[in-house]
Amino acid sequence: MTDPFVVVGADAAGLSAASKCRRENPDRDVVVFEKGRWISFAYCGMPYFIEGRIERLSNLLSLSPSEVDERGIDLRRGHEVVGVDPEERRVSVRTADGETFERRYGDLLVATGGRAVTGPFDVRETDGAFTLHDMDAAAAIDAYVADPEEYDPDRADVSAVDRERVDHNAALPAPETAAIVGGGYVGVEMAEALTGRGLDVHLFQRSEHLLPPFGEAVGERVETELADRGVAVHTGRPVEELVGDDRIEAVAFDGDEFPVDLAIVGVGIEPNTELLSGTGVELGEGGAVRTDEYGRTNLPGVYVAGDCATAIHAVTGEEAWMPLGLTANRSGRAVGATVAGDPTPVGEIAGTAVVKAFDQECGRVGFLEKEAAIEAGFDPVRETVTAGSRSGYYPGAAETDVTLVADRDSGRLIGGSIVGSDRAAVRVNTLATALEADLTVPELERLDLAYAPPFSPVWDPILVAAKVLNGTLEG
Amino acid sequence: MTDPFVVVGADAAGLSAASKCRRENPDRDVVVFEKGRWISFAYCGMPYFIEGRIERLSNLLSLSPSEVDERGIDLRRGHEVVGVDPEERRVSVRTADGETFERRYGDLLVATGGRAVTGPFDVRETDGAFTLHDMDAAAAIDAYVADPEEYDPDRADVSAVDRERVDHNAALPAPETAAIVGGGYVGVEMAEALTGRGLDVHLFQRSEHLLPPFGEAVGERVETELADRGVAVHTGRPVEELVGDDRIEAVAFDGDEFPVDLAIVGVGIEPNTELLSGTGVELGEGGAVRTDEYGRTNLPGVYVAGDCATAIHAVTGEEAWMPLGLTANRSGRAVGATVAGDPTPVGEIAGTAVVKAFDQECGRVGFLEKEAAIEAGFDPVRETVTAGSRSGYYPGAAETDVTLVADRDSGRLIGGSIVGSDRAAVRVNTLATALEADLTVPELERLDLAYAPPFSPVWDPILVAAKVLNGTLEG
Repeated sequence: MTDPFVVVGADAAGLSAASKCRRENPDRDVVVFEKGRWISFAYCGMPYFIEGRIERLSNLLSLSPSEVDERGIDLRRGHEVVGVDPEERRVSVRTADGETFERRYGDLLVATGGRAVTGPFDVRETDGAFTLHDMDAAAAIDAYVADPEEYDPDRADVSAVDRERVDHNAALPAPETAAIVGGGYVGVEMAEALTGRGLDVHLFQRSEHLLPPFGEAVGERVETELADRGVAVHTGRPVEELVGDDRIEAVAFDGDEFPVDLAIVGVGIEPNTELLSGTGVELGEGGAVRTDEYGRTNLPGVYVAGDCATAIHAVTGEEAWMPLGLTANRSGRAVGATVAGDPTPVGEIAGTAVVKAFDQECGRVGFLEKEAAIEAGFDPVRETVTAGSRSGYYPGAAETDVTLVADRDSGRLIGGSIVGSDRAAVRVNTLATALEADLTVPELERLDLAYAPPFSPVWDPILVAAKVLNGTLEG
Repeated sequence: MTDPFVVVGADAAGLSAASKCRRENPDRDVVVFEKGRWISFAYCGMPYFIEGRIERLSNLLSLSPSEVDERGIDLRRGHEVVGVDPEERRVSVRTADGETFERRYGDLLVATGGRAVTGPFDVRETDGAFTLHDMDAAAAIDAYVADPEEYDPDRADVSAVDRERVDHNAALPAPETAAIVGGGYVGVEMAEALTGRGLDVHLFQRSEHLLPPFGEAVGERVETELADRGVAVHTGRPVEELVGDDRIEAVAFDGDEFPVDLAIVGVGIEPNTELLSGTGVELGEGGAVRTDEYGRTNLPGVYVAGDCATAIHAVTGEEAWMPLGLTANRSGRAVGATVAGDPTPVGEIAGTAVVKAFDQECGRVGFLEKEAAIEAGFDPVRETVTAGSRSGYYPGAAETDVTLVADRDSGRLIGGSIVGSDRAAVRVNTLATALEADLTVPELERLDLAYAPPFSPVWDPILVAAKVLNGTLEG
């Protein structure tokens, strides 16, 4: 009998792998160890829960433990894997009760995800200071923001929740002014969420533009949108410190202090790779575990998937680390198929991402910044155009900014972004597809894209941008 | 001195060519002959004008004669080209006053477009019966639909309009019940438009499904949507005759008569190729003029572009005829560049199209019907899935149907459709790009498409469909 497929971590990558393996090979034993109480929840939905757009914390759960059980997966919550012995193909497990035991594996998937970077900010000991990277934090922020008289405990309607932390935060006076430290996805989404909750929101961004991976054109549009909606945006303002003893009192920057009674730190995530340290595992970009096209590490029988794994970038063919939801689900699923006997590539990544900032829909893919493109060996040429989202005469047409980046020598599309209020975000998939198919800008310009007055002008904004960039490439 | 670039027809293809040629080569003379008074208007906007969503007929004009003049183009309205002598490179022109003259050309572009097919229906002599393929018809229908007491003559605010026809129609009693003959784009858009104007609308479709080129999944969804909005849809009901002497009284089918006081016939268009008959020009698919990748016919120096020209299909590499707006603009522009000295391919077509039916957004590309795919040499495998447009927990998620068609042997994507109420239409551009890039379904399944709860579930509906079709291909 083959030793079981052991999975560490019961979130997107881990449970996708476990489920796929069971489905493809129902005879194979699958064990999933999860150190905490939560499984399979939607990180990306947490800001919308806090905003109040989503009514219950339970709405963010994808799979319940009983559904996992029905799939024939042996799920062990409260079981932390604390060691891996790749020679003996064995993991050491510590239970919540403090007991430890060892378990042999045939194949091992480490899907331990990432954690919020806190930088110099200690958010743990101060009331009103948070990062947002797990469901307990989402529930705590939601409770903290609410007026103590009006908080509805049923909002946090999941038994796994840290009820004590929720109750503690719910009892504190409601905040009026929030500082968000970091202008990436989490920062922008939280700015919208907290504005929706009636707070006076200040967003602090270290660099000159919001959403740096989306490029300047998107960053500027989002900055305007946030300002129009009443968010005070402070770019080029690195926050140096969170001030406050028991409760947050201010954020400090430039030798100044700005009083707040809520601070959310969203300055990035880092991969959880500690479990494999000392095993001889190779790390790669971003400190994530280096994996090949099947999610394999350099250790025999050891796979890594999701936010703690590197991936291959579709444009460069080189290693990259971009922790995103689809990547985690897809790589987990592929590893599940592979260990079930059907070798399946995890797929390349193109860094495709979309984000909502009030009415602005933003998308990005590939290389947008010159420096990164040059470092990857390209000679980048970039153009940004503003085009209508519909025929000019059709009501609702909105200005849509499209940025395209090409390599001068080959003419190949290597990146792009889109921002606008009318169906802009999903249009980035056209660019992602073109980029993954290695299209050149002349090829992009000749694509037969859809036209009808309610949805696009005759020349889709992407075609307009391709036309302009093509002119630059030829000129 | 080179003889001028002569263009016949001052609509999308013709004026795109003339403008591009002047811009690229300002020394070259460009003459455009247009037999009528209208130039450069938005066919696709006419239903929305009639609906009342667009206030003025002039909103549908893209270019005014004076703007054309400013581009250095010698535009002659009321000049019908009645003959072409390819040996002598000469056209014969008849003016509105009945005079005729000849003009030499260096290069000739025939961009005479298409005309509405009327089938067995004589719409010219009967009040209340119309086709919709020009601005005079749009103005006349709009006037006819209005209550004579309430019609605003400023709606038809273009001097070129057939004022007599408008006044005649405006004076007739407002209709209450409309028959639309034909369930294609025009039929579906007019059903929405006339419903918006308060009419009781009956849509008659010869075959079993609306919007046949979009496939059954879209047709069925649109049929439901129209019915929900109060349109009576009669599929499998070929209308045989329009009944009425001076004014429309009924439509006849199955030996039955259904009384109406408005009938719109939208059963397709056919290419205007008569000008070149007798010249030895080769015709191709759909009776359109056969053109090569640069829009050239078999006659030296004679180009054809727009609705009267064939094009190369991106999936088959074979000749096809699909008269659509982008194709006309793009092929005209390419011919303009080519005759200016910069040989530019007109680009392939993929049959990408989108249409709005009330809240349903529909898109299609490539081959959807088995018969057509088999005829083109493929062994088609088709799957339709229903997936959410957003994360399930995010408000506004809408069921989106994606149909994908692949060739069994090669696994290549050869067609697809999308229908749904949440940003469905523009998603078809992802399929168009994949199809033109010759992606296989496994490649499509591994595309890094965008995910964020407001815009897409983790697995975009297209990825879900690719996953299912891939399973079928492997199975």
